[in-house]
Amino acid sequence: MARHAGVSTTAVSKVLRNAYGTSPQMHRLVRAAVDQLGYRPSAAARALRGRTWTVGVMLPDVRNPFFADILDGVAEHLDGSEYQVLMTSGCNDAASEARVTEAMIDRSMDGLILIAPVSLPAHLERVARTVPTVVIGRHSRSARYDTVNDDDFTGAGLMVAHLAGLGHRRIAHIEHHETDRVRLAEMPNALRADGYRHAMLEHGLAAHIDIASTSYTRDGGHHGARILLDREHPPTAIFAGADVVALGVLDALAEAGLSVPGDISVTGYDNIALAGYRPISLTTVDQAGHRIGTTATQLLLDRIAEPGRPAVQVKLTPTPAVRATTGPPR
Amino acid sequence: MARHAGVSTTAVSKVLRNAYGTSPQMHRLVRAAVDQLGYRPSAAARALRGRTWTVGVMLPDVRNPFFADILDGVAEHLDGSEYQVLMTSGCNDAASEARVTEAMIDRSMDGLILIAPVSLPAHLERVARTVPTVVIGRHSRSARYDTVNDDDFTGAGLMVAHLAGLGHRRIAHIEHHETDRVRLAEMPNALRADGYRHAMLEHGLAAHIDIASTSYTRDGGHHGARILLDREHPPTAIFAGADVVALGVLDALAEAGLSVPGDISVTGYDNIALAGYRPISLTTVDQAGHRIGTTATQLLLDRIAEPGRPAVQVKLTPTPAVRATTGPPR
Repeated sequence: MARHAGVSTTAVSKVLRNAYGTSPQMHRLVRAAVDQLGYRPSAAARALRGRTWTVGVMLPDVRNPFFADILDGVAEHLDGSEYQVLMTSGCNDAASEARVTEAMIDRSMDGLILIAPVSLPAHLERVARTVPTVVIGRHSRSARYDTVNDDDFTGAGLMVAHLAGLGHRRIAHIEHHETDRVRLAEMPNALRADGYRHAMLEHGLAAHIDIASTSYTRDGGHHGARILLDREHPPTAIFAGADVVALGVLDALAEAGLSVPGDISVTGYDNIALAGYRPISLTTVDQAGHRIGTTATQLLLDRIAEPGRPAVQVKLTPTPAVRATTGPPR
Repeated sequence: MARHAGVSTTAVSKVLRNAYGTSPQMHRLVRAAVDQLGYRPSAAARALRGRTWTVGVMLPDVRNPFFADILDGVAEHLDGSEYQVLMTSGCNDAASEARVTEAMIDRSMDGLILIAPVSLPAHLERVARTVPTVVIGRHSRSARYDTVNDDDFTGAGLMVAHLAGLGHRRIAHIEHHETDRVRLAEMPNALRADGYRHAMLEHGLAAHIDIASTSYTRDGGHHGARILLDREHPPTAIFAGADVVALGVLDALAEAGLSVPGDISVTGYDNIALAGYRPISLTTVDQAGHRIGTTATQLLLDRIAEPGRPAVQVKLTPTPAVRATTGPPR
């Protein structure tokens, strides 16, 4: 780089350290070379500091309480270690995720845990090439990073089986809208919708497949329920793709004066702490967020210790958590 | 430091940059001097990198959804800027906070927002001396950092006035247990308890002051309600010091087969998003978390631009949010 800038290596070093005795012109020359070569100050900082004992965790959304369960698992596994967890929000958006992952790399983190990233596979590969990475909640396969997932396809089937077992036939689903081909194959939301369709077929209910495509938020649940209630033949049960979605469904049903499960059954997915809260008592799928967090953290520590080791894919088995929002149809 | 280590300044610089041409002995000498002088590699990194465009936000607890409102405000105010937010959890514990703030300083953050820190004032001063700092949710006064608070004392009075206006006399309170003298004067929870006592006096209800001392968690609310229901004369209304506490109260009341507000009225404090959720519809105090977040962020950016400027104390005025969990006593 010194050659590129046309100044001495000592001068470059001085400028990068903000040392005294450097002229404005020297600064300009070095900075221009830095920009042109894409030289990162953080790389220097990393070499200077060695390990930073920092693990970065990217969440898609600070409002979905399911992620708090994962974070608890991460924190528990790192308890007593020297590691510090720094969290960021990727905002469920590829552009934000690019910025956030870049920022975490710039800040020399020793390893990253990315939760349900929506980025292109090439971006995830690039991140994992730069820093040890574990991805939670994305059914992708890479030689460079480890993954921890719940078996979302099977989990969705558990809810359909539970509702069909109660005698429901018009079982509708609320999904997180998705059009990207890769994400349709890899994201938990897409696999839950697939699992729903597949299970409906298996139970001979193909004619009753009915999906409202909104988002994995409370508003998305409220909106999805409104769509489904307006059908000519409204469902007798709604399987919401996430617990936060189910909360929005319950809200819309209360608003419409419908009783749960008397008039209509509701299920979620995730088993957030609030699902077990008595005034809500949501039937849902337990995907053991805490264990997802501890497992991912162990994989990350292994990978930091041995960056080149083969990638591991962990798939955890979900279990149904039956509570008070489901019952037989009228 | 070079003199201290007994080597040349060039050698020190080389070692700190992990440059080639340094002997193991030189490394040892410099590292020993570094340890002895408490010289931080991060300080070198900071000088080397200049501004890091990183704002650190310390939360007490990732499970209390009120903090998501503050974070929304922070994110909105930084949207479009170069700043990246990194979050940490201080775990509501002075030892963890010391570790977390130290970690954020080590990682060269340009500024810190500390939410409801429980640390000793001396520690907060030390942090603010090292890095531009804004403190949310602590009624302390410092020349070095800015504060943003809700008027907790007044807010508590709003709930007592609302309940007394409905005809309640046995109005009980659930507080976050606190014994530290300084925190009793500065923490929002302590000011809410004070505001409750003061308002009870003002309404001629001194004889009915009744406080269950647990914690600002859902479990704390559940436990507090159990304590109050076991009194010889149970309250006809419970003012929980935080919305998460009120959620626990509602759970305990449902468990006990009591109807709300028919048998007993319940109020919270914070106005979390869930409080407005129809199936819960909690009467509470709106302390405008979003505005707290934007205000604190503006103060922090000002302070980063002008670190020595006089400290600012902002106190926001709370408003009551009356919903469905309060009504006249039987």
